[in-house]
Amino acid sequence: MFFKVAIIGAGNVAWHLARAFEDSGHFVTDIYNRNISHARDLASRLYDTNVTDSSDLTHSEAEIFLIAIADDAIEKVTSQLKVPPYGIVAHTSGTQSLEVVAAHHDNPGIFYPLQTFSKGISVNIKEVPICIEALHQSTEKVLFTLGDSISNEVYAINSEDRRLLHISAVFACNFSNHMLTIAQDILEDHDIDFGLLQPLIVETVNKALSVGPEEAQTGPAVRGDDATVKEHLKFLKYDPAYRKIYKLLSEHLEQHYS
Amino acid sequence: MFFKVAIIGAGNVAWHLARAFEDSGHFVTDIYNRNISHARDLASRLYDTNVTDSSDLTHSEAEIFLIAIADDAIEKVTSQLKVPPYGIVAHTSGTQSLEVVAAHHDNPGIFYPLQTFSKGISVNIKEVPICIEALHQSTEKVLFTLGDSISNEVYAINSEDRRLLHISAVFACNFSNHMLTIAQDILEDHDIDFGLLQPLIVETVNKALSVGPEEAQTGPAVRGDDATVKEHLKFLKYDPAYRKIYKLLSEHLEQHYS
Repeated sequence: MFFKVAIIGAGNVAWHLARAFEDSGHFVTDIYNRNISHARDLASRLYDTNVTDSSDLTHSEAEIFLIAIADDAIEKVTSQLKVPPYGIVAHTSGTQSLEVVAAHHDNPGIFYPLQTFSKGISVNIKEVPICIEALHQSTEKVLFTLGDSISNEVYAINSEDRRLLHISAVFACNFSNHMLTIAQDILEDHDIDFGLLQPLIVETVNKALSVGPEEAQTGPAVRGDDATVKEHLKFLKYDPAYRKIYKLLSEHLEQHYS
Repeated sequence: MFFKVAIIGAGNVAWHLARAFEDSGHFVTDIYNRNISHARDLASRLYDTNVTDSSDLTHSEAEIFLIAIADDAIEKVTSQLKVPPYGIVAHTSGTQSLEVVAAHHDNPGIFYPLQTFSKGISVNIKEVPICIEALHQSTEKVLFTLGDSISNEVYAINSEDRRLLHISAVFACNFSNHMLTIAQDILEDHDIDFGLLQPLIVETVNKALSVGPEEAQTGPAVRGDDATVKEHLKFLKYDPAYRKIYKLLSEHLEQHYS
């Protein structure tokens, strides 16, 4: 079963979902974005897709209107969006509620892909968990069908659990990645190749996924090796922000494992 | 060229290095550990290895004495250790200086494997960077030969750079892994399967290693999505420690990318 989908937004999530929908035989009818040149960039990689900077999509052929924009813009954009009668309006946010859509549209839903997307970096979407929520069963069914067509991991997840997943994802993805950035910065500030850490980083994740991160933990803080922690903190005085992060996380680690 | 190596310590690093040396044809002659039952555990997985809880290894056949113990015990153990004349004494620490060995032994060195080791989890040691330092060229040559026999990545690294590598490794490995532990805790506290995050975690690391972590960064903080950050902080009130970590890292991320 193929759907006609309009996408509101032209960022990382819009980019990846639009391509995934087309790859699975659906039609991306419209891209609506305030900045129309971003909409054009995305549409240029799709087949026969209209672009617009108007929130009035009443005359769109789409059956599903997917709002893939920054969380803090969703409420405003959703309230202004005009869709045809019976149009399903769903957002892709991990945090925003179903109500934010339900307040303005009859067939509200959520279509949240639990993944980190960057433009130009391909993702195996088949493995990406997609979290579905809807007010009406008929809407849920359509969103499930759409999800199943692009991923093997589609789940009905309520707003509470979705928010928990999103918060966990911030730790597991955004914060863990930022730890890598800090490591790289420290090395490159001193002309040492970040590549030296690559085997360590690969092994860290392999171990965390095979035995669980709690059991996989190593390092001075968890060993209670205060001398090393102190020496590192002394060295990090040159960057008070890094020092503060090192201190807080070491304290938390020691406490967690004591 | 095969060496006779005595290992001081019976923890994670000792465990992996001892096996790697034997796999490459060297002889692990002795395991010295204060807790002799730990020494026996390790020796039982090696070929014809003596165990002892005495720091007097004067009569050992070994040419190289490798101190693979917690950083804060190195100074004391090194000062008490007795080895035959000409014995090379090297520690495996990322942080401790060469001087801590040189103060008590004529042929001091460092043999630091830059990896996270856990007992019972095998590691491809061939890819593990090994950082070598020594007071005398002859010692450096022996340690290089030993390193080259187990790994393809052996480097001469001075104490200053080694310390930087170790601090970076704490961020890239220990702290990033702890972010996964927190993610898992948050989910399991609420009966949600941590496995849902697996594709995200794998993609996070793949992306960080292919385009670099700085460019790979996504998430509410780096987007400046304050509403989501605030909502997450509000939710995390149930665990003040998690909340504090979320707040500090989000602030640092916003600042870093602004």
